[in-house]
Amino acid sequence: MIKHALNVTREKDFAAWYQAVISEADLAEESGVRGCMVIRPWGYGIWERIQRLLDDRIKATGHENCYFPLFIPLSYFEKEAEHVDGFAKEMAVVTHHRLIQKDGRLVPDPDAKLEEPLVVRPTSETVIGAAFSRWIQSWRDLPVLINQWANVVRWEMRTRMFLRTSEFLWQEGHTAHASEAEAREETLKMLEVYRSFAEDCLAMPVVAGEKPENERFPGAVSTYSIEAMMQDGKALQAGTSHFLGTTFSTAQNIRFQNAEGELELAQTTSWGVSTRMIGGVIMVHGDDDGLRVPPRVAPWQIVIVPMLRDQPEDAAIVDYCKTLQQELAVFSAFGEPVRALLDLRPAKAATKRWGWVKKGAPIVVEVGGRDVAGANVSVIRRDRLYREDGKLDSAVVPRAQLVDEATAMLESIQQALHSQARERMDTNIRRDVTDYAGLEAAFEGTKPGWVEVSWSKPSGAELDKVVERLKALKLTFRNVPEGAAPAEGNCIFTGAPAVERILVARAY
Amino acid sequence: MIKHALNVTREKDFAAWYQAVISEADLAEESGVRGCMVIRPWGYGIWERIQRLLDDRIKATGHENCYFPLFIPLSYFEKEAEHVDGFAKEMAVVTHHRLIQKDGRLVPDPDAKLEEPLVVRPTSETVIGAAFSRWIQSWRDLPVLINQWANVVRWEMRTRMFLRTSEFLWQEGHTAHASEAEAREETLKMLEVYRSFAEDCLAMPVVAGEKPENERFPGAVSTYSIEAMMQDGKALQAGTSHFLGTTFSTAQNIRFQNAEGELELAQTTSWGVSTRMIGGVIMVHGDDDGLRVPPRVAPWQIVIVPMLRDQPEDAAIVDYCKTLQQELAVFSAFGEPVRALLDLRPAKAATKRWGWVKKGAPIVVEVGGRDVAGANVSVIRRDRLYREDGKLDSAVVPRAQLVDEATAMLESIQQALHSQARERMDTNIRRDVTDYAGLEAAFEGTKPGWVEVSWSKPSGAELDKVVERLKALKLTFRNVPEGAAPAEGNCIFTGAPAVERILVARAY
Repeated sequence: MIKHALNVTREKDFAAWYQAVISEADLAEESGVRGCMVIRPWGYGIWERIQRLLDDRIKATGHENCYFPLFIPLSYFEKEAEHVDGFAKEMAVVTHHRLIQKDGRLVPDPDAKLEEPLVVRPTSETVIGAAFSRWIQSWRDLPVLINQWANVVRWEMRTRMFLRTSEFLWQEGHTAHASEAEAREETLKMLEVYRSFAEDCLAMPVVAGEKPENERFPGAVSTYSIEAMMQDGKALQAGTSHFLGTTFSTAQNIRFQNAEGELELAQTTSWGVSTRMIGGVIMVHGDDDGLRVPPRVAPWQIVIVPMLRDQPEDAAIVDYCKTLQQELAVFSAFGEPVRALLDLRPAKAATKRWGWVKKGAPIVVEVGGRDVAGANVSVIRRDRLYREDGKLDSAVVPRAQLVDEATAMLESIQQALHSQARERMDTNIRRDVTDYAGLEAAFEGTKPGWVEVSWSKPSGAELDKVVERLKALKLTFRNVPEGAAPAEGNCIFTGAPAVERILVARAY
Repeated sequence: MIKHALNVTREKDFAAWYQAVISEADLAEESGVRGCMVIRPWGYGIWERIQRLLDDRIKATGHENCYFPLFIPLSYFEKEAEHVDGFAKEMAVVTHHRLIQKDGRLVPDPDAKLEEPLVVRPTSETVIGAAFSRWIQSWRDLPVLINQWANVVRWEMRTRMFLRTSEFLWQEGHTAHASEAEAREETLKMLEVYRSFAEDCLAMPVVAGEKPENERFPGAVSTYSIEAMMQDGKALQAGTSHFLGTTFSTAQNIRFQNAEGELELAQTTSWGVSTRMIGGVIMVHGDDDGLRVPPRVAPWQIVIVPMLRDQPEDAAIVDYCKTLQQELAVFSAFGEPVRALLDLRPAKAATKRWGWVKKGAPIVVEVGGRDVAGANVSVIRRDRLYREDGKLDSAVVPRAQLVDEATAMLESIQQALHSQARERMDTNIRRDVTDYAGLEAAFEGTKPGWVEVSWSKPSGAELDKVVERLKALKLTFRNVPEGAAPAEGNCIFTGAPAVERILVARAY
C-alpha cells in the first residue's frame, strides 16, 4: 500500500484533505485577521500565472485595464435597490478617518467621523458606472471596454480559504455598448474566454451556460457561469459573465446620443473570475500527495533538486545542475520560456523532493553523484508519481534526453491532467433522471456528481418554491449548459412541458 | 511662436499645467470619491509597465510575491507606538460589516458593529510581521524575502493626483534577516534597484541617499530615499528603503534560534515605490504639449494613425498600416517586442495625432494616400516635436527605413529624455552655499532648484529646531547623497563642525 505524503486522503475527509493541501503545499494560511487569508508565494505564484495568461486574453479581446477607487460612497448604492439588496448584508463600512489613544487603547476618533460612510467595494458596477456616465456622450464613445485587477470585500460569516474569504482578489470587466445585441455578444464572448481559459490553462473542464433567474447577479438581466466539477462531485462556480441591460445605466445615468441624435441608455455588461479559481485547481487536480499544478500555471514547471551530502563532490553536482537549468531555460513550452528552478536551500534532498511533490511542481529532477557520473538525471513526473507496484516512479534518463523531451513532457502533463478531469466530469453527469424521485435517489450516494434534467424554466414565486425544495436536499441549480440536448417531456419540478435542460448539483 | 497643445504652460502655472497634462493625456481623473482617483487606461498602462519591469528586478534579487490582508486589527498597531503615531492621524477605519435601510437611506447596521475595528492598511509591517513570526523559527528559515503589489490608504486632507491620494497603488517589500549587516545590505541593495530602475526605465535621474532622522519612516532605524528633481525645481521622493532593525521583530515577536541554539530577534527591512512615480514621470518629462512617456514604460511605443477621408483609397491605407504594424512588431526594443498600435478609432486623423502627442506616445506615424503611393510614412518623434522654425517636425521617410530604425529611434528617445532630465538636475543643484543667508538667498527665485550643504547632523531637539526654521522657508531636508563630497567647514545650521553633505529643497 502506498504511503502518501498527506496524512488525510480525499476519500476519508475531503474537506480536511483540502485544508491539508493548502497548508502542506504552502499555498495560503489563516492571517489572524477575520476571514482574510495570507496568500503565500506558491499560491500567489499560481495567481500571477492566472493573471498573466488571462490578462493577455482580456487584452486580446480589446479591453484595457484601469483602476477605480476601493471606497464607494453609500449614495452610489442607494441608486440601485436590487443591487444593494444583494450586497448590503456583507459590506465592510468605513466610518472614521483617524484613530486616537483613549485609556491606553487605540479607538476611532469620534471627531473624525465621515459625513458619508464609505463601503469597501464588494464589486464595482456603481463606481465604474459613474465613470462611464462621465466618459460616454456619443455613440462614437462606444463601446467602452474596461477591466480592473483588484481586491474586493464581502463580509462572509463562514469562510474557507480561496473559496470564500472576506477579502479576495479578482478581475472585473465592465463594458458599455450602444445596443443590446452587442452587449449580449460581449457577455457571451467573455464567457467563452473564461471557458477556454479554464480548459486550456487550468486544465479544468467546465460547463458554460446561463444561470436561472434565482442565481442571477443582483441587478443583472442574464447571468452566465462556468461550472467545474470537484473530485467530491460538487460544483464550483469558477467565473461569471453578466448582461446588465440598462440597470446600471439607469442608476448611474449612462446615456449617449445615437447616430440619429437621440439620447439612449447604454447597455452594460460585467464579468469576473477570482482567486476562487485556485480552490478549483486544488479540488480538480490535487491527489493524496498534495497539489498537482497544471504546467501552464505552475510558477516553476521543473524543479531541480541536487542530492548533496556535504562531500567534495557536491560542487560538481551543483555545477551539473546549473548547466541543466540553463539548458532547459532556452526552450519554450506553451509559447513561453520553460520555468526551471534550481533548489539550493539548506535542507535534505528528500525533504525538498516531497516538498515539491506536495506543492505539485509538474516535474522534479533529482541529481546525485551517480547521475553526474553517468550524465543522467532522475525524473519524477507529478502526474504519474507511482509505478504499478506502488513505488515512487523516479526514472533515470540521460540528461540530454530530459532536455530534449522536457517541453513535450510538460505538454503531456497538461494534457493528462485535463483528460483525467474531463473523464471524471463526463462520467459523473447523469442525464437519465426523468422524475423528482429519481433526482432524490441520484443524490443519495457519497459522491453523487451532477444531474442534468429537463425543466419548464419556472419563474418568480413558482421558481422560489422549486429552489426551496431543492435546498432541503442541499441542491442548487448550476446552469443551462450551452449545447445541451433539447428538453424532453415534462419538467420534473413543475410537471409543465419542459423547455430546456438544467444542471442540478451540490455546490461550493 | 509655437501654438502648443495645452492651454497652460509650465512657465505660467506649473500646478495648473500638471493637472492639464493628467486630464489631456487621459491619465487619471477625480473619481467623485473623496481623495481617490480613477486611473484611466493610459495612466494604468504606464503603471503596468512599471510593475512588469520593477517586478522582474525584485524577483531577480531573490524576492517572492505574496498577498496579505487589506484589513489590520487595531491591536496589531498598539504593539508599536512610534509606528502608530506616524499613521494614526490618517487611517481609514472599518467599524461595521452590514448596511440596513433606515428612513429610506442606507446606514451602517448598529447590530453589525465590529468588536475590534479594522484599519485599512496604510502599510503592512504589522500584519506581515505577524506572518514572519509564524514563518521564522530557525536561522535556516532566514532570510525571508517577500514583496506584495497592493493598494494602501492614508487619509490625506489635501490630495493631488498621483502625488498624494487617499488610496494609492504600490509595492511593498518586507524582509527578515539573521544579522544587522545582512539587513542593512538588503536595504541598500533595494535602494540601488530603485535608483537604477528610475534612471534606466523611467529616464528619471535621482539622488539616492539616507534621510535625516526627522524624515525617517515611523519605526525605522535608517531610511533611504531616491529623490528626483521636477521641472519646477522641487524634489519628489520617488522611493524609500528602510532598515527597521528590531523594531517590528520586537513588536511582532519575530525570533529565531541561531546556529548556536540561542533565540535572537530578526532584523527586518521594508521598501516601496508607488503610483507617485507616475507623477514624477509627468513633472520630469512633460512639456507644453503634454506628457512625454519614456519608451520603456510607454504602453504603446509607436502609434500608427491612418489619414482616412471616407474615400475608396482608405482600404489600401489601412492595409498598408496593418502591414507596417506587423513589420514593427517582430523587432525588439529593450529586450521586449516593440509595442505598436494601429489607431482605427472613428475620429479625425488630426485629432488622433494631437491626442497621441498629448499622451506622449514616443513615436507617432501618420500614413496618408501619398505615403502609400511613395512607400513612405510620416514620422513624428515626441522628444523633438518642432523644427527650428517652430513647425511640427513630421519627417517623410521610406517605410523600410522606419522599420529598420524604429528600435534605435526608441532607444535614442529614451536616452534623450534621460539626458535632458540629467542635465537639468545637474545644473540645478547648487553646492556653493556656505552660510544660512546664502541658503535663504538661493531659494528666493521662482525655480530655485536644490542646495547641497555641509551640516553637523544634529539630532533630537536640536534637529527639530533646524527643521522648524527651514519650514518657515518651505524647505525640507531630502537626503545625504551617496557619493557626495566630504563635508567642509562648519554646519550652516548649527555652527558645529560639519560631518556630511545634505540636500535641501522644496518638495512635493
